[in-house]
Amino acid sequence: MKKIINDVDNLLDESLNGFAKAHQDIVSLQHQPTFVHRSAFSAKPKVALISGGGSGHEPLHTGLVGKGMLDAACPGQIFTSPTPDQMLAAAQSVENGAGVLFIVKNYAGDVMNFEIAAEMLECQHETVLVKDDVSLPETHSTGRRGVAGTLIVEKIVGAAAEQGKELSQCKSLGDRVAKNTASMGFALTSCTVPAAGRPTFELNDNEIEMGVGIHGERGREPMTMNSAEELVQHITTAIDKELNPQPGQQVLLHVNGFGATPLMELYLVFDLAAKFWEAKGVEIKRSLVGNYTTSLDMAGCSVTLTLLDEEMLMLWDAPVHTAALRWGC
Amino acid sequence: MKKIINDVDNLLDESLNGFAKAHQDIVSLQHQPTFVHRSAFSAKPKVALISGGGSGHEPLHTGLVGKGMLDAACPGQIFTSPTPDQMLAAAQSVENGAGVLFIVKNYAGDVMNFEIAAEMLECQHETVLVKDDVSLPETHSTGRRGVAGTLIVEKIVGAAAEQGKELSQCKSLGDRVAKNTASMGFALTSCTVPAAGRPTFELNDNEIEMGVGIHGERGREPMTMNSAEELVQHITTAIDKELNPQPGQQVLLHVNGFGATPLMELYLVFDLAAKFWEAKGVEIKRSLVGNYTTSLDMAGCSVTLTLLDEEMLMLWDAPVHTAALRWGC
Repeated sequence: MKKIINDVDNLLDESLNGFAKAHQDIVSLQHQPTFVHRSAFSAKPKVALISGGGSGHEPLHTGLVGKGMLDAACPGQIFTSPTPDQMLAAAQSVENGAGVLFIVKNYAGDVMNFEIAAEMLECQHETVLVKDDVSLPETHSTGRRGVAGTLIVEKIVGAAAEQGKELSQCKSLGDRVAKNTASMGFALTSCTVPAAGRPTFELNDNEIEMGVGIHGERGREPMTMNSAEELVQHITTAIDKELNPQPGQQVLLHVNGFGATPLMELYLVFDLAAKFWEAKGVEIKRSLVGNYTTSLDMAGCSVTLTLLDEEMLMLWDAPVHTAALRWGC
Repeated sequence: MKKIINDVDNLLDESLNGFAKAHQDIVSLQHQPTFVHRSAFSAKPKVALISGGGSGHEPLHTGLVGKGMLDAACPGQIFTSPTPDQMLAAAQSVENGAGVLFIVKNYAGDVMNFEIAAEMLECQHETVLVKDDVSLPETHSTGRRGVAGTLIVEKIVGAAAEQGKELSQCKSLGDRVAKNTASMGFALTSCTVPAAGRPTFELNDNEIEMGVGIHGERGREPMTMNSAEELVQHITTAIDKELNPQPGQQVLLHVNGFGATPLMELYLVFDLAAKFWEAKGVEIKRSLVGNYTTSLDMAGCSVTLTLLDEEMLMLWDAPVHTAALRWGC
């Protein structure tokens, strides 16, 4: 394993220090317990949006804290859920009278810890659970995983909260975006968790992992390496089957790199995925291409489709000012 | 080699198609010869900024076309200079009465082809040569290479052109930014050029390449893998020796990933580099951390320092709307 680190045990802290220093106009970092919150708070009450999860997926979630998106994010150790005291401290720090909405990716540890934090929280609160990964069946024992679609939920609900929507409205909007969002990805390589020091799984030179998770967990099935066209066809077909967009449907198409895949290849995937849906009369109204929900140094990518309505489109376009997403500000 | 491609020969075209489709609000793509230009032109005359170079460094340069930055970019094949007819067609397409400024990274092929294009161009034109890589001595046979500092030249001069500065002013500003910018990087792995199908060079598990170029060319020297602190110390010391910033000097600090290095590690590098200069009383006034000048799937990063004056700072902050950099718009 070669990584640019000093000490595996301090990696997260040192990285967060650099993140907070590089973006001090946007975020502040708190220690013991660790969380990141906006450096400027809203003067009038607004629903406080909080997310979090294991680290290693940067820029998700810390890079999405800022105006028009999250109020705080709780980073756990790499691929490890943050603790309830992080979530509680974050909530108490940023809540300002309109309640707290937790946005949680569907992993057992995250779900449990956010539930414990919610129980201890005295203000009104709701949770939106994101489980957009269609590589697993809905009947899977722990349900489907939350992956790159989480960013889309955070952006759209973040804009609604910024515009003064109430907690119940943010909650139902979040559920609506989550329900209309589906993702699937594949990996060309595993990632290497620093504390483990070796790749989480091995793939042969002619093998990929289809339906891979974002923690280096193996996917739906190993498959033979194939052309980009066939790989993309496989995932767009699965997403299409889930969401069944009709001709004329407006969508947001998000191609997400897992960390080690060049932008050239991600744009090629975007081209293929866009063609797939355009051929069905679906209108690619908005796009997002880049490394947003990563798995450390894993090579590969995912495709996420969100069926948009007018409100969701307006909220996607609303101003945002975070480390990773910025427009209109 | 595992890459998400259909055919090595079509990779660039397919990728550019996806890029242009994903960012159709910002750019348009032209074929035969190939170049990318802004989709909306300036109504009043402004200096037209054009850059280009081999592909494989995305988002540089195509991702930097748009309001407040480049007017056009000419992508060559991977790590191969674009041809003079691309540059000439781009210049003729975007020039609107105030002349053309070429921003060229210092590589023999790029320099020669931009010179040929300039000779054929009938309007007034100037060239800014970027050679910010301090890993090579100034006396190196072909001079120092242009690397991640190029983006900084493009951003600052792009803002000046947008604000109506004349060609001679843009040229001297570009030279000033280039002179006050220095970079150096190291690689943990080589990249793999698709047409070659194997890594350009091999490194042992305990080896890195210090002072590496952005084309997978070997660097100043192979070194034993070391802590992040020692690696960063090595490059910040070389940059510091070159630019010699004094206490109180305001700087822009840019940590650039080569493509396969997680953001967590880049922020850790930022933290270390910032501490190095802060200890000397240098003021880190602005920062940029991410994968901007990449080398396909190479792991590693570079550090770039720019000594800022008030005008450069104001121009860095000015609105920009490109695929890769966006603020104030």
